[in-house]
Amino acid sequence: MAGLGAPAVLKSAAAPRGYSWGEVEKMIARGNADGRLTVDDLPTPALLLDLDAFESNVEKMVRHAAGSKRALRPHAKTHKCAQIAKSLMRAGAVGACVVKISEAEAFARGGVTGLLLTSAMVGRHRIERAVALGRKQPDTIFVVDNAQNAQDMNDAARAAGIKFHVAIDLLVANRTGIQTGEPALELARAIDKLPNLKLKGIQAYAGGSSHVVGFEERKKHSHGTMTPAVETRWLIEKNGIECGWLSGGSTGTYNIDSEIDGITELQPGSFIFMDIDYNVIGGKDGPEYRDFRNALTVLATVISKPSREAAAVDAGFKAFATDRKFGPSAKDVPGLRYNWGGDEHGRLDLTQASRDLKLGERLEFIVPHCDPTVNLYDRMFGVRAGKVESILPIDARGMSQ
Amino acid sequence: MAGLGAPAVLKSAAAPRGYSWGEVEKMIARGNADGRLTVDDLPTPALLLDLDAFESNVEKMVRHAAGSKRALRPHAKTHKCAQIAKSLMRAGAVGACVVKISEAEAFARGGVTGLLLTSAMVGRHRIERAVALGRKQPDTIFVVDNAQNAQDMNDAARAAGIKFHVAIDLLVANRTGIQTGEPALELARAIDKLPNLKLKGIQAYAGGSSHVVGFEERKKHSHGTMTPAVETRWLIEKNGIECGWLSGGSTGTYNIDSEIDGITELQPGSFIFMDIDYNVIGGKDGPEYRDFRNALTVLATVISKPSREAAAVDAGFKAFATDRKFGPSAKDVPGLRYNWGGDEHGRLDLTQASRDLKLGERLEFIVPHCDPTVNLYDRMFGVRAGKVESILPIDARGMSQ
Repeated sequence: MAGLGAPAVLKSAAAPRGYSWGEVEKMIARGNADGRLTVDDLPTPALLLDLDAFESNVEKMVRHAAGSKRALRPHAKTHKCAQIAKSLMRAGAVGACVVKISEAEAFARGGVTGLLLTSAMVGRHRIERAVALGRKQPDTIFVVDNAQNAQDMNDAARAAGIKFHVAIDLLVANRTGIQTGEPALELARAIDKLPNLKLKGIQAYAGGSSHVVGFEERKKHSHGTMTPAVETRWLIEKNGIECGWLSGGSTGTYNIDSEIDGITELQPGSFIFMDIDYNVIGGKDGPEYRDFRNALTVLATVISKPSREAAAVDAGFKAFATDRKFGPSAKDVPGLRYNWGGDEHGRLDLTQASRDLKLGERLEFIVPHCDPTVNLYDRMFGVRAGKVESILPIDARGMSQ
Repeated sequence: MAGLGAPAVLKSAAAPRGYSWGEVEKMIARGNADGRLTVDDLPTPALLLDLDAFESNVEKMVRHAAGSKRALRPHAKTHKCAQIAKSLMRAGAVGACVVKISEAEAFARGGVTGLLLTSAMVGRHRIERAVALGRKQPDTIFVVDNAQNAQDMNDAARAAGIKFHVAIDLLVANRTGIQTGEPALELARAIDKLPNLKLKGIQAYAGGSSHVVGFEERKKHSHGTMTPAVETRWLIEKNGIECGWLSGGSTGTYNIDSEIDGITELQPGSFIFMDIDYNVIGGKDGPEYRDFRNALTVLATVISKPSREAAAVDAGFKAFATDRKFGPSAKDVPGLRYNWGGDEHGRLDLTQASRDLKLGERLEFIVPHCDPTVNLYDRMFGVRAGKVESILPIDARGMSQ
């Protein structure tokens, strides 16, 4: 399906007693070119991608977007990996969203086209870098939420002899953007007058809706948020300015926003991996959100066993993003409780665990929040049935500029 | 002092209107070799190190350790930067602590000696990697908290024809380690019988004490925690086993543990940078802990200004560690409140701010927790009076394995 594996080389069995560190280091450096790496060989903490689950998630979202006749431009801030962006495009996506110019540059270097930068080009050198990107990839879409910035973008484009596709970033999530309605119309008029900007349409990412718990509540919230965005589109069009594109949606609202008339494109990100943060929001058919499978885990090792009820693993604040209220969750040991143990460790409470743990044992943990967790690693290991099929470089890791 | 700057090249003034992005990119890639970069040139978010504050912090800690006749082996998990570790050693430190073997390897590559690995070598390939490091740098100290692991370390050292210096990791922070008293004595006896291990002493990092609010409460807590560790040392020595070394202390307890008889070495980390997490614990002389200066900040840009009271900056979960209850704090705008705005943004509440902000304006934020924040960046910019004096690669960034 999404084609991240290396099926041709999977026939060789793992060496009976595994490889030496020197051998593993070389296999990782060579991108597992001969396909002999197994999950048991990897140094921990390691970021694992379950390829079966990933491919099923991609297929489901692609089918949904196609079925509801919306374009799909998944948000690449989630995975920061050019190989994943390109596999999504092979499956049917029209491009990839990114937030920052440095991220966009990394994806462009990796051969990803159809980029939408979801944050405005404000700040030292950002417009200069946008010009370089726009020249290299004229299909890139930039957002603006301010008339002066639109003017600056236009002037830079004119000086460079190019045109920028721009979308109006609407304030629908209490973060960035211009107010819906009249202020947005005024900005559309300003853009329309600028010869080196071409108005693509509207971006309205409703971050406040994506994690509303309960499907009906979430639906209500997203309708409340996206209706003014859609109305802003109609308002602009009614005033004679072309505005045929509206990008919204998230992993939490993909099947809500795709039924709202006027939204033409979906930009979900987390669906490829899933995390606890989304598992808890509730699905269309039940209290747990299981539209997509948990594909992303962190593999950790038990490195200390101070007592029968306690163990420590080698994965802490530097191995998991910590921005949610809950910690990681052990994939295969029911009742095991992970408590933060500082920068480098997790403290496991085994009081209610289904079984005891051994020193040196390795466990997979589902992550609280996928995007900033991925940003902590240089690579993901694509795995299937215990074998490492692919090593996926996280090309835009750390690129927040 | 600590010597991170490049004083000889500071005479050239910044170009009147700054450099192009192409020029800045080259200057960063070349490590600011000609010293022309200014803070205003940097892409944001950027990690800044105030060199005056850093040097003052180093000087103060070095003087304190020398005055109290304790060795100083600062924890390098805080900075992950070989240049900083070496500057601390030039100032008087005996080496550097690290947590993981991959971190140790990075520092060894960077020329740092006197390494103490504060976490046990348990898990796939860790002992094999420890052998390679021990062979290259025989002064490296490893910790053990388990007899079988000690036996495994010994067997590997014997097979390699080397000896390991090992310290017993004591359970004083509810995380890793062996129980104090008899269990530790038993482990000391086991180590003493192993021909390829040499018992260095005891490591007792009281993570639970370091952030106790209020100096007297913290002192009481640390005494309560460290007394069993010191008694364990005496118990081992009384039983005829040499145990002349005990490493403890933190930025919160450096001036408490240095007065406890029997503790020979301090391993504080955060003092070089300081963060809000330590600012709030209270000092010896007042309600605020100001023993060390805030040297580390994240520089961010205002990229959206949706209303008079609100602004958005380009630094969110991927620019700051989020493991504490509080968010970043603006260094120079009293009353400004930073609220998390997701992976890539901060939402600024200007209701109580001392002044308004402009689009494109740049602000420095003191970080909630320094160690995991540093781990998000590839480099730190050492600055003095608005000039970038040095670019410090974060060599062990992401090395949690």
